[in-house]
Amino acid sequence: MAVNLNPPGPLHPVRGVRLATARAGIRKQGRADVALIECSPGTVAAAVFTNNVFCAAPVLVAREHLCARRPRFLLVNSGNANAGTGAGGLRDAHASCERLAALAQVSPEEVLPFSTGVIGERLPLDRLEAGVEDAVSGLGRDNWLNAARAIMTTDTMPKAASLQVEISGELVTLTGIAKGAGMIRPDMATMLAFIATDAAVEETLLREMLREAVDRSFNRITVDGDTSTNDACVLLASGQSAAGRIESPESEGFEVLQSALEKICIQLAQSIVRDGEGATKFVAIEVTGAANSEDALKVAYTVAHSPLVKTALFAADPNWGRILAAVGRSGIANLEQDRLELRINDVLVASGGALADGYIEDQASREMQRDEIILAIDLGMGHAIETVWTTDLSHEYVSINADYRS
Amino acid sequence: MAVNLNPPGPLHPVRGVRLATARAGIRKQGRADVALIECSPGTVAAAVFTNNVFCAAPVLVAREHLCARRPRFLLVNSGNANAGTGAGGLRDAHASCERLAALAQVSPEEVLPFSTGVIGERLPLDRLEAGVEDAVSGLGRDNWLNAARAIMTTDTMPKAASLQVEISGELVTLTGIAKGAGMIRPDMATMLAFIATDAAVEETLLREMLREAVDRSFNRITVDGDTSTNDACVLLASGQSAAGRIESPESEGFEVLQSALEKICIQLAQSIVRDGEGATKFVAIEVTGAANSEDALKVAYTVAHSPLVKTALFAADPNWGRILAAVGRSGIANLEQDRLELRINDVLVASGGALADGYIEDQASREMQRDEIILAIDLGMGHAIETVWTTDLSHEYVSINADYRS
Repeated sequence: MAVNLNPPGPLHPVRGVRLATARAGIRKQGRADVALIECSPGTVAAAVFTNNVFCAAPVLVAREHLCARRPRFLLVNSGNANAGTGAGGLRDAHASCERLAALAQVSPEEVLPFSTGVIGERLPLDRLEAGVEDAVSGLGRDNWLNAARAIMTTDTMPKAASLQVEISGELVTLTGIAKGAGMIRPDMATMLAFIATDAAVEETLLREMLREAVDRSFNRITVDGDTSTNDACVLLASGQSAAGRIESPESEGFEVLQSALEKICIQLAQSIVRDGEGATKFVAIEVTGAANSEDALKVAYTVAHSPLVKTALFAADPNWGRILAAVGRSGIANLEQDRLELRINDVLVASGGALADGYIEDQASREMQRDEIILAIDLGMGHAIETVWTTDLSHEYVSINADYRS
Repeated sequence: MAVNLNPPGPLHPVRGVRLATARAGIRKQGRADVALIECSPGTVAAAVFTNNVFCAAPVLVAREHLCARRPRFLLVNSGNANAGTGAGGLRDAHASCERLAALAQVSPEEVLPFSTGVIGERLPLDRLEAGVEDAVSGLGRDNWLNAARAIMTTDTMPKAASLQVEISGELVTLTGIAKGAGMIRPDMATMLAFIATDAAVEETLLREMLREAVDRSFNRITVDGDTSTNDACVLLASGQSAAGRIESPESEGFEVLQSALEKICIQLAQSIVRDGEGATKFVAIEVTGAANSEDALKVAYTVAHSPLVKTALFAADPNWGRILAAVGRSGIANLEQDRLELRINDVLVASGGALADGYIEDQASREMQRDEIILAIDLGMGHAIETVWTTDLSHEYVSINADYRS
């Protein structure tokens, strides 16, 4: 059950981008499990991929194709990750690109493949190819929500976000979709995200913009600390808006676009956490007063990954001892117990290495009952600040992952 | 429910060491929650403590006392960890040592205090001191099992081990007790272990022997990756055996004693894992073919801590994709997918980055049904080998930690 995750609002079409879906029956019958995203010639693309060494076949192929050519199609399937499938899996990923390329009269290198779902099983290539044939005739500007649905695996709700901004008096649109619910941690987790804009952006700059936005969004979330083999986030810029081309960080509109991109990415990233497997809480771990950003993130992730903190969150137990113990083992230098302050939402819980004066457990318990919780940890060491978003660890998480072959 | 954890066998008394317990009602009435271990004058002691920066008051006091004097008493309470209790907690730890010192006519610095249980609450000092008074009159050589019971918290069974070896024709005894079931990870987890021998060992050497044994036992186990604030392992050597004093690694009996000590430590450490919170499986992660020991441990711990691997173990699902994904994100250099081999017990599952030829899932499933599982991962990179012992992640783990304030 997702935590305060609403169905996506209106998704603005992006000029130059069309989408389609198909029911290929890759793992289950009767649900859309193939999505195509087509972009117009001249579209500039940037992408960030999983850091997992054992990355899946489609990741290898997408990286290679993106180096060689600007993409015309993203081909996404759910139900099967085409990961841990060796040389055969690579052949399958190439074959699916070739099939779409032949139908759409583009080069196979202009197709980027993406897969999500079960690891270790070969793609049912014939069914996937039949799905691609179905989809290619149904391309339309308004299929963003359908595409968001088609890429879901254990997600309980589709995830999408859309924004319009004005740049030099012209309307610029950003719309994106994402999937992911488990195997979520920094450095790109089990998630796919596809974002398009009609802004015109220089290619190297677009990559920097995406990297920056991903660092502040998808790389700040964790559900269970597991990094998937298939993660990818792609940003397409069709350039079909009438606004001027953004060539550098000094160009008109750069900051507006970067800020809009970050908003979209944060909204999609938080949607993934809100829909985290078994999540009953949406939790922000805010670390302030750190000597540097790296330390702040170490502390935030150690707390966010602690099974004892996560089960306490599930139990709505203001068990600050577990939080302190996690901070204490985070491995950062010069940590001092008596400088630390801990707040649960606005309630000051611990200060100077012990319970805060005037602390009333009932107040903290009441905050822990909420489904949106901020654990604010001030280290009293410096000025760096980082926030990581995460969930609790519930019975449902165990059920989902003990029952679902992912 | 512990996994194949049997009640301790006969526990040999250790010459020069007496024990006692008391029911102090520290957290619950009607159970023994105080244990005293007395050692004869001249006993040499070594200890290893938690690396958690936010260590508990008794850890600070025990470290300080151990530097100042050879101990005559270990004073252990369960039910309250005296952690996160600030300056008041330190005063309490000192006061409990002083009380025992006055009763037993030793110096307070000859008492090492240890606490385990709830974090963040002050010790009920009056009840603890009354318990100490009760205990001090009941010291006896045969109270090892009672002491093992008195130090339990969420443990479902007492943990103890005992061995006798011969050194220069003389009998030497080693007996130890331990507690711990959750918050277990390397670098000394929520565990206390007290081991005594009547061997005579030079003090610096005894420290090295303990460090070495702990590295191969307590520092190779993990239940949930959380490190407690209170961990400690103490080794007492009373020197009352008739065997000659061990002065150096070249002394007669050194290897026999080191090997016996490691056996005791491994048995106690494995007992802790077998009794891991919610454990339904006892799992050895054996990493071979690593470039070095550090890499092997990184891989082993990444797999051992992966919630997805742990839930698959709970579900008896040979979900090798999750194991590969964990290996792939472990962060070691030069990892190559196509050199990796994975076995579940004796079944070769994956080889060369894909399913092994002739792999039959039913065979792997059958192995995963067992309650003792070896996940053997060969990295094909070098000759280093490490083994880490862990458990699965079950509904029971969530229940225990969502209900129990630890």
